[in-house]
Amino acid sequence: MNSFTSRLSEQIIDKNSHLCVGLDISPEGLGNKNAKLSDLIDHSIRVIDSTIEVAICYKPNFAFFERWGSDGFKWLEKIIEYIGNKSIIIADGKRGDIGNTAKQYAISIFDHFGFDAVTINPYMGSDSIKPFIENPEKGVFILCRTSNKSASELQDLDIGKQKLYEKTAELAVKLNINDNIGLVVGATVPSEIRKIRMIAPNLPFLIPGIGAQGGDLKKSMQYGNKNGIKFIV
Amino acid sequence: MNSFTSRLSEQIIDKNSHLCVGLDISPEGLGNKNAKLSDLIDHSIRVIDSTIEVAICYKPNFAFFERWGSDGFKWLEKIIEYIGNKSIIIADGKRGDIGNTAKQYAISIFDHFGFDAVTINPYMGSDSIKPFIENPEKGVFILCRTSNKSASELQDLDIGKQKLYEKTAELAVKLNINDNIGLVVGATVPSEIRKIRMIAPNLPFLIPGIGAQGGDLKKSMQYGNKNGIKFIV
Repeated sequence: MNSFTSRLSEQIIDKNSHLCVGLDISPEGLGNKNAKLSDLIDHSIRVIDSTIEVAICYKPNFAFFERWGSDGFKWLEKIIEYIGNKSIIIADGKRGDIGNTAKQYAISIFDHFGFDAVTINPYMGSDSIKPFIENPEKGVFILCRTSNKSASELQDLDIGKQKLYEKTAELAVKLNINDNIGLVVGATVPSEIRKIRMIAPNLPFLIPGIGAQGGDLKKSMQYGNKNGIKFIV
Repeated sequence: MNSFTSRLSEQIIDKNSHLCVGLDISPEGLGNKNAKLSDLIDHSIRVIDSTIEVAICYKPNFAFFERWGSDGFKWLEKIIEYIGNKSIIIADGKRGDIGNTAKQYAISIFDHFGFDAVTINPYMGSDSIKPFIENPEKGVFILCRTSNKSASELQDLDIGKQKLYEKTAELAVKLNINDNIGLVVGATVPSEIRKIRMIAPNLPFLIPGIGAQGGDLKKSMQYGNKNGIKFIV
């Protein structure tokens, strides 16, 4: 049985790529406020067809599906079936709840939808993470230092000589018994990527923020890199 | 136009109650692992029928619906329609994402589903909160000091002379321009409720953790209280 992190590393080597394709498709994003759900579904299939050879991961963000209610979740179910086992699929849901509820989310994400991994918010601590990491084949990416402007408001607060995001990285390292935990570190903050890599030398990084958010691709790859495998952008 | 907080206060006075009914219904919770979705739907309707006269709020937790995929969201849509305007309905989704994505969640929760309020995770800062508080009639409850055991791992870290959860409370007070922000403070930590009430004298508190989690109802009501109106349990 391969751990999630080793599966991820194998995909990176096999496809010789670090690409994680976000699936965040909205009428506004397509520049057509009158776009219907069927237009978005067609577009999502075209995006997958165009990228499947080079995508290590797809990362559908739940918000863009939930917006359409139950019909949006039918779309999400369809996409996951369409990608199948050709790529790793990450549920970008930024989940975080008490243990009993986190267990329900784990059933949703891994058993019902069949995702390989999920993004997790660490504010509620390890109870809220553990139900997602029991199965070594399934993974989590814990929000550490995010790419958005206001990330600094809490994440950069000083805890003694460290920042809060460094404490989060330490917590992730401590919990990584099953080799299936990674960290989300924004491409917009390359110097933080470097600091977090020192705390978590063996955790894979999911580095969003290239493109619309103006993240630094070159530095993200340089600082996030670990033996050529431990990151996706 | 009434702000969310004034609507909440009016309901508390009108119904002479502080009760918030969680809708977290699972086969395991019903003690019947073979329960079908239709059984859970029937149960949820019975819970609502039994409590509608005294419930200030209903709080469906998304995890328990998402577990059933698109069919679960049809159930959620049905429940919201069933409650209608007889009570305030809070989306317990603990949402937190970058601004553009938070906007999609706000469309989902307020426009598609028709909730009155939503629970929010503050880790990503004010960008991730603002799209939910633009409309004064709609509200948010920001996770401040949660009821679970591992909440202390990050929330109780020392930032100078304060704890992280106190910084979160300060951020919430700062953002409360439209009188529609509340805080989630666990009934399991009454002394923290008292401290947070000093920082945020005018924000409503959502105080979960009574019942299965063993929270202290008496102290929660004593410390969370503000002019007899500013809390729900």
